[in-house]
Amino acid sequence: MSDDPRDPAAGGAVDSVGGTVHEPSDAAAPSRFSRRRALGLAGAGVAAAGAVAVGGFAVARDDDAPAERVAAGHGAIPFRGRHQAGIVTPAQDRLHFASFDVTATSRDELVDLLQRWTAAAARMTRGEGAGPFGAVDGPYPAPPDDTGEALGLPPSGLTLTFGFGPTLFTTAEGDDRFGLAGSRPAGLIDLPHFPGDNLDPLRSGGDLCVQACANDPQVAVHAIRNLARIAFGSASIRWSQLGFGRTSSTSTQQVTARNLFGFKDGTANLKAEDPDAVARHVWVHRDDDPDARWLADGSFLVARRISMRIETWDRTSLQEQEAIIGRDKGEGAPLSGGTEFTPLDLDVEGGTGPLIPMRAHVRLTHPSQNDGVELLRRGYNFTDGSDGLGRLDAGLFFLAYVRDPVTQYVPMQNKIARDDVLSEYLQHTGSALYAVPPGVQDAGGFLGETLLG
Amino acid sequence: MSDDPRDPAAGGAVDSVGGTVHEPSDAAAPSRFSRRRALGLAGAGVAAAGAVAVGGFAVARDDDAPAERVAAGHGAIPFRGRHQAGIVTPAQDRLHFASFDVTATSRDELVDLLQRWTAAAARMTRGEGAGPFGAVDGPYPAPPDDTGEALGLPPSGLTLTFGFGPTLFTTAEGDDRFGLAGSRPAGLIDLPHFPGDNLDPLRSGGDLCVQACANDPQVAVHAIRNLARIAFGSASIRWSQLGFGRTSSTSTQQVTARNLFGFKDGTANLKAEDPDAVARHVWVHRDDDPDARWLADGSFLVARRISMRIETWDRTSLQEQEAIIGRDKGEGAPLSGGTEFTPLDLDVEGGTGPLIPMRAHVRLTHPSQNDGVELLRRGYNFTDGSDGLGRLDAGLFFLAYVRDPVTQYVPMQNKIARDDVLSEYLQHTGSALYAVPPGVQDAGGFLGETLLG
Repeated sequence: MSDDPRDPAAGGAVDSVGGTVHEPSDAAAPSRFSRRRALGLAGAGVAAAGAVAVGGFAVARDDDAPAERVAAGHGAIPFRGRHQAGIVTPAQDRLHFASFDVTATSRDELVDLLQRWTAAAARMTRGEGAGPFGAVDGPYPAPPDDTGEALGLPPSGLTLTFGFGPTLFTTAEGDDRFGLAGSRPAGLIDLPHFPGDNLDPLRSGGDLCVQACANDPQVAVHAIRNLARIAFGSASIRWSQLGFGRTSSTSTQQVTARNLFGFKDGTANLKAEDPDAVARHVWVHRDDDPDARWLADGSFLVARRISMRIETWDRTSLQEQEAIIGRDKGEGAPLSGGTEFTPLDLDVEGGTGPLIPMRAHVRLTHPSQNDGVELLRRGYNFTDGSDGLGRLDAGLFFLAYVRDPVTQYVPMQNKIARDDVLSEYLQHTGSALYAVPPGVQDAGGFLGETLLG
Repeated sequence: MSDDPRDPAAGGAVDSVGGTVHEPSDAAAPSRFSRRRALGLAGAGVAAAGAVAVGGFAVARDDDAPAERVAAGHGAIPFRGRHQAGIVTPAQDRLHFASFDVTATSRDELVDLLQRWTAAAARMTRGEGAGPFGAVDGPYPAPPDDTGEALGLPPSGLTLTFGFGPTLFTTAEGDDRFGLAGSRPAGLIDLPHFPGDNLDPLRSGGDLCVQACANDPQVAVHAIRNLARIAFGSASIRWSQLGFGRTSSTSTQQVTARNLFGFKDGTANLKAEDPDAVARHVWVHRDDDPDARWLADGSFLVARRISMRIETWDRTSLQEQEAIIGRDKGEGAPLSGGTEFTPLDLDVEGGTGPLIPMRAHVRLTHPSQNDGVELLRRGYNFTDGSDGLGRLDAGLFFLAYVRDPVTQYVPMQNKIARDDVLSEYLQHTGSALYAVPPGVQDAGGFLGETLLG
C-alpha cells in the first residue's frame, strides 16, 4: 500500500462517486482559490459525475499488480507503481500523445523538469490541478498553476506514461549533452526505413514523450497542455496526436473495439490478465541489457502514425476486405471458422486455397509466423480533419509496448510492409521509438530516477 | 407521435438499456450480415452499454418539442421533427463537422444526394448502419453499404444537422447552377471581414454542411465518413473539424462546461427550456423573408474556427484573466458578485471602477449592450495537434444558431473584435454561414424538400 497520505488509494481524496474532491491537498501551498471555492467545486464535481449516472469504484492499490485491475471509468488510476500506468491499464477511450524536444542544456535542468512533471502527473491523475489553482497570495499577480479547463471534471481514468527518445541520449549530431550516451539501451535504435514509409519529420522522433489516456478527452488534453506549460523553457512540443476509440483491448474485460477499416482490432492482443505473457513480451528484465539496467520494469514504446486510404478501402468489396484481413467483418471471427475468439486455423483449406489467405493480415502477424513474437498494442483511431483534396486525414495511431523493438517490432513490420495486402491501403506518416522507464514507487521519487538519480 | 414504424420512439427498436437493437429494420433490403449476425451484435451492443453502467431512458417523441427533452446519453434522438435535431438538443460531448462542395451539376442530382443523405441519417441516428451492412447477395461483389466501425456501438445520442451555404444558391462566380438564386435567404450573406480575421480559405465556406454530434466520437466520425462516401460523385468534403467538450450548455439540465481558457462557457446561453426565447432568437418564422418561406422553422448557423493563443493566455495572471472575462474562474460567478447564475450587475462599482470592467467579455456580449440580441451557442473545444513551433493548435469551434445573422451575429462580432480585450488572445481562422432548413417530418420527406421539392 502507498504511504502517501495524498494518494486516493489511501482513502483521503476519493469521494463517494469516484471523483476526487478538488480541495488541494498540498497544505504547504494554499491558494486563494482553494480557500474561497473548495466547497462549491466539490459539489460541481459530484453533480457532473451524477449526471451520467456512473457509479464510483474503489481504487485497489497493490504495487505488484496495480493499474490493470482498475476498471476504466471516471475514477482515479494510481500513478505510482512498479511499472508506469497506461501500459497494461485497460485502454481508456481517448488519447492525447505529445513528443517533446528538450531545450534544457544541463542534466540538472532535465532532472528538474522530470521532477516537476512527476509532481504534476501525480496530482492530475488524482483529478487535481497540475498545481494549486489560484495564485498564492504574494506581492505580484501570478498565472494560475493550473489552466482550469478540467476543474470540476472527475479523474476520468487519466494515466500519464513517459518515455525517452534516442535523441535524449545522443543528439542527431552525436552530442552527449546530458552524459547519458553510455546508458542508451541497445534496443533504443534509430528505426530503419520500412517499405512504404512516407514519414513526416514533423510527426516523428522527439526526446521525450507523454502518452495521456483518459475517458474524457478534455482531461487528456488538459494534462498535456499543463505538462507543456510546466516545461516552458526546458522542453517544447515537437508534435502531438489526438486519438479516440481505443482499437486494442488490453484486458479481457473489454469489448473489442473497431478500427477505421471497420474491423475489430486487437482480438488476439496481449491481455493484462495474462501476466506471464506480459512479463515475457512487454517488461524489460534486469539482465536484458547490462548497460541499461535502469530500464528494468520499463518497456519500449513504438509509435507510428498510420494513415489509411479510407476512400479507397470504402470502395472495396466486403469479400475482398475480409480476405485482406483474414476475419469476418461483422463478428471478427477468423475466416477459418468459429467466433471472434476462436484460434486461427491457418491450415484449413477451402475450394480455392487456405480459408485464411496466404497474405491475409492475421496470418502474417500471427505469433506462429513470427517466432512466437507478440506485442502489447494500445493504438487509437485518429481523424485530423480532411486534406485539401476532400479525403479524410484519418487512420490508426499505432502504439505498441515491447520488451525489445529489435526482435519484436522490426522484423514484423518489415514483413507486413512487404507482403501484407493491407499495406496497399496504408501509409506510415509518423514514427518514433522511446524507452519507457519503470514506474515511480516512492513519494519522493521521480520519473527517470533510475537513469538520472 | 411518429407514424413511422421504424422510429425508435414508436417502440420498435429501443431495448432496455437505451441502445437500439442492431437488427436492420429495413425489411426490403436484407443483408448477408443481418441474417448471419444480428443476434450476436445485439448482444455486443448491450454489453457495451452495460460496461459503462449508464442507465437507459425512453425516447419521448413529440413533434412540437422533440429533441430538447431527450437526455444526452447512449440512446437514440429522433431524427424527424418540425425542427432539425442537433440545435436545441442538449449538446452532446463530441463533434465532427464537415463542409462539402457540391460537384453535382443538376438539380436532380442534388435532390438525389439529399434524399440518400436523409435515408442514411435516419438510419444512423437510430444506431443502424448507413445502409444494410453486408452486400446484398448478387452477381458481383460489392462494397458494404456501411463502413462498419460503429457496428456494435449504441446510437450515442447522434444528431445530424444539415445546412446550405451561400454558394449553393449562387456560386462565387455568380452562377445560378441549380436555379436557386431567387430563393437565397436575405440573411444568408457573405459574412464581412471582421477585425482580426485571419481566415484560411481551406477552413471556410462550403455549399453544404453536416454537424454530427454524439456522445461517442467514433459514432460522429462514422456518420460523417459514411455521408461523404454516399456523396461520392455528387459532393466532396471541403473541410472538416473535430471537437470535444461542448462549451455551451443548451439545457438547464447540463452542467456548464469549460472552454480551453479554463472558464465556464455558456452560463448565460439560451436554453431549450425557454421555448419563447428560442422561438424569438433561433427559429426562422414564415414571414421573416417572403423570398425564403422554405426556411420557416429552420435557422441560420454561424461556424467560426477560433484559434486561441493558449501559451500567452497561460502566462497571464489569474486576476487579469478574470478581468478580461468578467467572471471568476473557479465558479464562474460574475465579478459583480453572487454565484454562477446570478445576473450580472454592470453598474456596481469597486474601488477603481466597475467591478465588471468596461471591456470585459461578459459586458460586451450582454443582451443589454446588444439591443436584446441573444444567440444559441453550441460550440466545441478543439485541439488539432500542435504547430511547427511547439504551440498547441487549439481553440473554440464556435457554432451559433440564430434567426438572423445580420442583426444577431454581425454587430456583436464587430464589437467584440474591436473592443474585447479577449480578442487579443484569439484569431479567427475559419468561417462559414449556412441556412439550416426545417426538419423532415414525414417518412417520405427529405432534407431541403421545402426548397427543392
